[in-house]
Amino acid sequence: MHRKAFYAEYIYYQGEIHRDSYLLVVGDKIYGISEHADEEGSTGYDIEHFHNSIIFPGLINTHTHLPMVLFRGMADDLSLMDWLQKHIWPAESKWLSEDFAIASAELAAVEMIKSGTTTCCDMYFHAEAVASVLHRAGLRAMMGIGVLDFATKFGENADDYIERASEFYLKYEKDRLISTSLCPHAPYTVKPENFQKCVDFCKKHDLLLHTHLSEAPNENQICIDKYGKTPVQIMNDIGALELQNNFAHCVHLSDEDLQLLGDTGANVSHCIQSNMKLGSGFARIKEMVEAGINISIGTDGAASNNDLDMIGEMNSVALVHKGLNQDATVLTAETVLKMATINGAKTLGLNRVGELKRGNQADFIVVSMDEPHMTPVFNPISHLIYSAKSTDVTATYVAGQCLMKDRELLTLDEQTIKDNARKWAQKIQDNK
Amino acid sequence: MHRKAFYAEYIYYQGEIHRDSYLLVVGDKIYGISEHADEEGSTGYDIEHFHNSIIFPGLINTHTHLPMVLFRGMADDLSLMDWLQKHIWPAESKWLSEDFAIASAELAAVEMIKSGTTTCCDMYFHAEAVASVLHRAGLRAMMGIGVLDFATKFGENADDYIERASEFYLKYEKDRLISTSLCPHAPYTVKPENFQKCVDFCKKHDLLLHTHLSEAPNENQICIDKYGKTPVQIMNDIGALELQNNFAHCVHLSDEDLQLLGDTGANVSHCIQSNMKLGSGFARIKEMVEAGINISIGTDGAASNNDLDMIGEMNSVALVHKGLNQDATVLTAETVLKMATINGAKTLGLNRVGELKRGNQADFIVVSMDEPHMTPVFNPISHLIYSAKSTDVTATYVAGQCLMKDRELLTLDEQTIKDNARKWAQKIQDNK
Repeated sequence: MHRKAFYAEYIYYQGEIHRDSYLLVVGDKIYGISEHADEEGSTGYDIEHFHNSIIFPGLINTHTHLPMVLFRGMADDLSLMDWLQKHIWPAESKWLSEDFAIASAELAAVEMIKSGTTTCCDMYFHAEAVASVLHRAGLRAMMGIGVLDFATKFGENADDYIERASEFYLKYEKDRLISTSLCPHAPYTVKPENFQKCVDFCKKHDLLLHTHLSEAPNENQICIDKYGKTPVQIMNDIGALELQNNFAHCVHLSDEDLQLLGDTGANVSHCIQSNMKLGSGFARIKEMVEAGINISIGTDGAASNNDLDMIGEMNSVALVHKGLNQDATVLTAETVLKMATINGAKTLGLNRVGELKRGNQADFIVVSMDEPHMTPVFNPISHLIYSAKSTDVTATYVAGQCLMKDRELLTLDEQTIKDNARKWAQKIQDNK
Repeated sequence: MHRKAFYAEYIYYQGEIHRDSYLLVVGDKIYGISEHADEEGSTGYDIEHFHNSIIFPGLINTHTHLPMVLFRGMADDLSLMDWLQKHIWPAESKWLSEDFAIASAELAAVEMIKSGTTTCCDMYFHAEAVASVLHRAGLRAMMGIGVLDFATKFGENADDYIERASEFYLKYEKDRLISTSLCPHAPYTVKPENFQKCVDFCKKHDLLLHTHLSEAPNENQICIDKYGKTPVQIMNDIGALELQNNFAHCVHLSDEDLQLLGDTGANVSHCIQSNMKLGSGFARIKEMVEAGINISIGTDGAASNNDLDMIGEMNSVALVHKGLNQDATVLTAETVLKMATINGAKTLGLNRVGELKRGNQADFIVVSMDEPHMTPVFNPISHLIYSAKSTDVTATYVAGQCLMKDRELLTLDEQTIKDNARKWAQKIQDNK
């Protein structure tokens, strides 16, 4: 198997910064870290030098809607309902073909690789088409099939959606990089008996349940009016808190909701920029961490962000909660880095990613310290969170495969993909 | 005089986006905008093409402490008092020589030019040395001389600091790019009679008064305990609200304070990332705008940010206040762009910058739309605020002079400056 040694001035390995070291990779796995580019008794490693750089674990984006990148910047500074009803839903209904989903997913893959994301957890339509793009890109992904109560062109009813998820699951059951999840949209759009079927399906196949939870206040009110319970209480009643779960947003939780999620060690995908941009508010992350909730980070769709940039997202998470709590010691740089890496892996049930250590998958990124905004360096972790831009990522590896080097993509044709995206945007603008 | 025509797909000119046009520049001034690269009766323009790009006015950073960039990332995730007393003040006392200030200012100038800032308003020590660096860089700057009640190596007492400011003012009185201001540190560190002297000096010479105001709650309490007044009330009593003023921070204002600043059309430099990072809290920008306060944007020093990136700062301003107000229509992208351009110019009393229009100084930046995170483009202004990274700035012009093209600096030697900054950081680390 191919043995490679990656030198960097700083490597964040098993929760510690190592100076002037080599990350040793054998095939798709991490073998270890060393001050020398070999190991005792080895037949030698091919050496790659990343000067003036930091190696971090690849970033894990736990809540995306990848095909929405082609709607990036299409409608901004609008209330959630105006945004959805006057812009996003009509655009989806008009444009969301399989070709569109593929063009979007390609652009999203390029953006993710170039900004240091190695794994995403997606929830949208055309999941198979999107999965095939990510497979080609060499990215790791948890792809979800959506479940709704009502008919769309993707299914007739909840049973039908779950049936399709079953086929999807079987197709990717043994895939090296793509896993599947089930994605009932939200407790205010999927009724408890259908949600229960989703929970049962996830239990049976040991799958992740990925859903939206308490993003906006009116969702809670709908659930209380309809079912006499908060969304979290519904999740509790149907057994979703005992599953591998990924609850996106969780902006509007009661103290009891928060405690319930904490007591069960639930996973929350914190989508801070989307929550701000749509005026949803702020999840109480400090209290959630204290209650025992596992917090990961998601960008949400690029139509409400407006990018898939996990470095920008980490910056927002670290800064905003300090401001909200009027306490500069809240959510340190390293805490936030863990949210975007190992906590994300834990959320997705991927035990072999999220941290650089022996035996784990070789998913890592190289961050350059060359730009003036990264100069000088006292603390590379703090630099990643408070100073870095996504464009400082110079190389991205997934399972030992190099997807980008010197900011040149190796698995996708960036220029063709961007040209294609621009053609789609032109069509959308011409037909408005 | 040299005539140049700069083509871009989008140009933000006099508050409107023009498609496929040329920005016409004669000498250091803007002549106009045209769909053709000439004007009637002209002798012709040299044409420069910026493909797939947007031209914006140069960004104006209204609150900086440039020599602190060498402390970038030195101390993070600490309470304000730990940060100041255990890290920043000792470091300043040990390292702040003129050589250090020059090395810092050079790095800061490189960072500003590369991130699209064309004007800054600085307040720190070694102002003359910093001004000489900015002059060499070709940047526009409002440089302040600090005033304190007590002796430092920069002065004996308030009268002495003001005397030095007077010399500084005379030296730069007729400079093309550097203007001067007076910077009493803050109402809790400079007593009212000394602050009054500053106001009188500014009135006499028609200078900007630049100070910190109500950044943290304890500052207000100190003023109330000592003088029976809030910082804003002190400003009002000594006539600072009738002057050209620049009040940095204003995080903790009473309703009466806010109204007073609004009634007098005061200028507030909003430093959102620094205020979050140090746990100071959030200025009430929506109410402040409604009250008639002129809001501009500042990064503060890079030790509490940790960069001088006005594009990142605009992103935070646009997103955070939507979240705080739970209203996605608060502070639109264009409103925030104006804060970082024309409102900044108004704050500094610079009538000929901040907007691209005939007769104004040719201070402008070119933002590339090439990266995947900028693809596709529906609205270039929204893209600058919600998607762009500072590294998308490909060219920066001040007074018609090109300071950067294709991300290569033309007035400063970036590599030497970064190497020098790294040597300083090594010295600091070796002597900790």
